[in-house]
Formats: sequence, structure tokens, C-alpha cells
Amino acid sequence: MLSKSQISLLRSLQNKKDRTQQSLFLVEGLKSVIEFIHSAYQIGAIYHTASFDPKVLKLSQKINLTEISVTDMEKVSSLKTPQQIAALIKIPVWPALDNTRLKQKFSLVLDGIQDPGNMGTIIRTADWFGMQHVICSEDTVDVYNPKVVQASMGSLSRINVRYGDLTSILPKIGLPVYGAMLDGENIYDIDFGQEGLIVMGNEGSGLRPDISKLISKAVTIPRKGNAESLNVAIATALFCSEIVRKSFK
Amino acid sequence: MLSKSQISLLRSLQNKKDRTQQSLFLVEGLKSVIEFIHSAYQIGAIYHTASFDPKVLKLSQKINLTEISVTDMEKVSSLKTPQQIAALIKIPVWPALDNTRLKQKFSLVLDGIQDPGNMGTIIRTADWFGMQHVICSEDTVDVYNPKVVQASMGSLSRINVRYGDLTSILPKIGLPVYGAMLDGENIYDIDFGQEGLIVMGNEGSGLRPDISKLISKAVTIPRKGNAESLNVAIATALFCSEIVRKSFK
Repeated sequence: MLSKSQISLLRSLQNKKDRTQQSLFLVEGLKSVIEFIHSAYQIGAIYHTASFDPKVLKLSQKINLTEISVTDMEKVSSLKTPQQIAALIKIPVWPALDNTRLKQKFSLVLDGIQDPGNMGTIIRTADWFGMQHVICSEDTVDVYNPKVVQASMGSLSRINVRYGDLTSILPKIGLPVYGAMLDGENIYDIDFGQEGLIVMGNEGSGLRPDISKLISKAVTIPRKGNAESLNVAIATALFCSEIVRKSFK
Repeated sequence: MLSKSQISLLRSLQNKKDRTQQSLFLVEGLKSVIEFIHSAYQIGAIYHTASFDPKVLKLSQKINLTEISVTDMEKVSSLKTPQQIAALIKIPVWPALDNTRLKQKFSLVLDGIQDPGNMGTIIRTADWFGMQHVICSEDTVDVYNPKVVQASMGSLSRINVRYGDLTSILPKIGLPVYGAMLDGENIYDIDFGQEGLIVMGNEGSGLRPDISKLISKAVTIPRKGNAESLNVAIATALFCSEIVRKSFK
């Protein structure tokens, strides 16, 4: 059973302003909830409908479980088809980025990604390819947006996502900076080596000029057909695949 | 100016039943409309708001241009932020698939893809990588769904998309059938040769058993991290990239 004010709080988390104020976000669906339970994230509460048996969760830690009506779940859900379970989760306070943790690996940098579906898919893809860090410009879509959380399919629980001013962050990291650009080197010819940053630009406008300046190697995905561009999550995946494919040969 | 019945017709095209009955669909936004104008598709009418100058279209053929109010555009649009222009386009009657046209190339086969965003992104990706044919199971999302049209970013105007019973279509084509499956051969080790079909399964459940039986080579995208699966449009792109990368080396 949820009070009116609880419903109102949970609903409000669909807006970034309220998520930031409350330092809370909602994760919906069994698969994602389980992945967050097994992560470093702090679970504030779990809400489930009567048809869901909480034993399925095999909880070892003490988490506040609340049975709520289907109607209430519909009220607080951001989904067209609400799930049987949702978790209220604390937005962590990330410590300052320690650049030494980015050495000897590849990380993603997102410059103004706007679409939540793309953002979530990028996080899921990063997780598939073993990347742990995603560094975002301040105007990149909020990673705790319900659609991002949904599209990330639980991977968000494992990926470190930071926001900041890329023009000051990138030079300090001191790694090769690869960027998807026109007239770059053919992605299929590049030896990416052991470490670096992959910078992906905004869906419509690509990389900002002041970010482009920081690219040490411009990379192009060659086109065989006629589409004007690739979706940014697709382009990100092609970078990830080219980087890791060596290790699977 | 649109009549009530015209508004009602255009709105109704957001539903598959009405699109099928009318053999019409709506394309929104300048970029996509231009690509359809330059395609084999038949344009029934173009609607634009007062702020749009139709000269931009450089129309050579005679197309019915109608200026409509912003309010009417909002009424007929499927977008949160309606565009200045939309085109009413005839759904073509595709001739029976000629299997000889699939030789010496790669085509995509979709088994029950449900998400319109994924479908549109797959079409855009196919177009980028020079694939011309996409063959879909009957229960794959309708390619003229507004969200598919939107996500395809105009590429739909260049790709042949057919629907049919895959269990009867695939064996008749007589090409190698590659399918994304667990425990298949490493995608990075495969020589895909010159021709074949790439079969991608439903977002949640993958390939149906009766389709799996028709796969001549099971292919696996190896995982380095922890995500349980890849988004289906991402997986499709990785197949496309591995198939064409040779030609760019």
C-alpha cells in the first residue's frame, strides 16, 4: 500500500530535477532489479504487486519490501506495460575520477548524446564489451532517466558513469583519444593498442568543435551503401567490436 | 487546410490496420520526405506548415502540396515535436521475391523483431552497409509503423522489406543461413564469403526453434564483459560490419 505522497514522490522521479533533489531513481522489472540488488548500489525499497513472490529475489540483505496494488504500480511506472516489481535506488555520489583507473583499458566518452534509448543501449553495449567507464558531457541525457535505465537492461548497475566538462577532463587523462569523424582513418585498419578513449558525438550534430580539437586520431566507419549516417549506439558498438576483436582471434 | 475527415484519415495511419486498409503511410520531417521523393515510392500528398518553403524540395514531379496549420500538423503527427513537413505515401505492392536477386550478396532476415526503434535502426544499418533486402516473419513489427519510419531516417526508401513465412521462404533461397546463437562459431573467425542470409531473432526470445533448424552456421558474438545480451540492432550491425570489413581492408 502506498500513500498519496509516496506515489507522488515515485512518479516525480521521472523528472531529472526531482531525481537530483531526492538522489533517488526507480528501476523497473525483475531482471534489472536483480542486477541492481547484486551491485554496489544502495536499494531504498522494493515494490511489488501481489502476483509477484519476493522469494524469487533470494534477498540476503535487509531490504524494505512493500506489496502494492496493480493500480499503484501503474501510477508510479514510466512504462506502458508496468512490471510486477520496481526498486527505489539511491543515486551514488561518485568520487572524483581517478585517471589511473582508465589506464590499460578503453573507456567511452559521450559528447551530448540526447536520446535515452541510445544512451541505455550504449551502456549495455559497453558492459557487453567489458568497458567499465563512461564519461559524459554535462548536457548528455541523464543516465538515471527511466528510459535509459530500461534500455540499459541492468548493465547500468555495473558501469561507472560520470558527468563533467569534457574539455577539461580529456586532456588530463593522457590517453589516445579516438573520435568518430568524417575523413578519418578507416576503422578496420587501425591498431587501437591497449588503452584509449572513444569519443562519440551528438545524434544530430556530431562532435562539438572544442571536443574535435582534443581528438588524437579521427576514425571513420566506411560506408558501403547509402544511409547518410549510422545511429550513435551502432557506431559505438562497431568501435567496441574493433577494439576487442583481436583478443578473440 | 485539412478537413476533419482528412485529419482523421492521417491520424488513423498510426495504426497498422488502417495503414493496410488504406495502403498509405505517413513520413515526417524534411530529410526523410526528401529521400522518399527521390525513391520509387509514390507520394500521394505533401503537407507543410506556413513556415516551410516548398521550394526547398526542388520538386520535379507533380505532387499535391498542401499548407496546413501547426495545430493540424500536431493533430496528424505521431511525434512529440511535430515537423514542418509530412508526406502521405503509398504502400507498394511488392512483387513475389525473386531469389536470384539475393545471389552474390547478403540480406537480412528478421524473426519476430518487435520494437519499432530496433526495426528502424536495423533498416538504417542495412542501408549503411549496402544491404538491399530485409525479409521478415509475419509477426515482425510493421515497417510502415511511424516509429520504424522515424528511426530508419529515410533509409526505408531504399530497402526492400518483405514479410512472409520464413520456414517456407528460407529453404527456397538456397544460400548459407547465418544465425546469431549461443555456442556458435566466433563471429571474428568466420569467412562469410560472398553471399548469405543473416537471421536475427526476437528481442526477448531469440530465434524460434523452427527457424533455428534452418540455420546452416550458428554464429556467436563473443562477450568480454557482463551484459546478458546485446540489443538486436547492435548485433545486426556487428554482423554487417564483419561481412563488409574485408572489402575495406
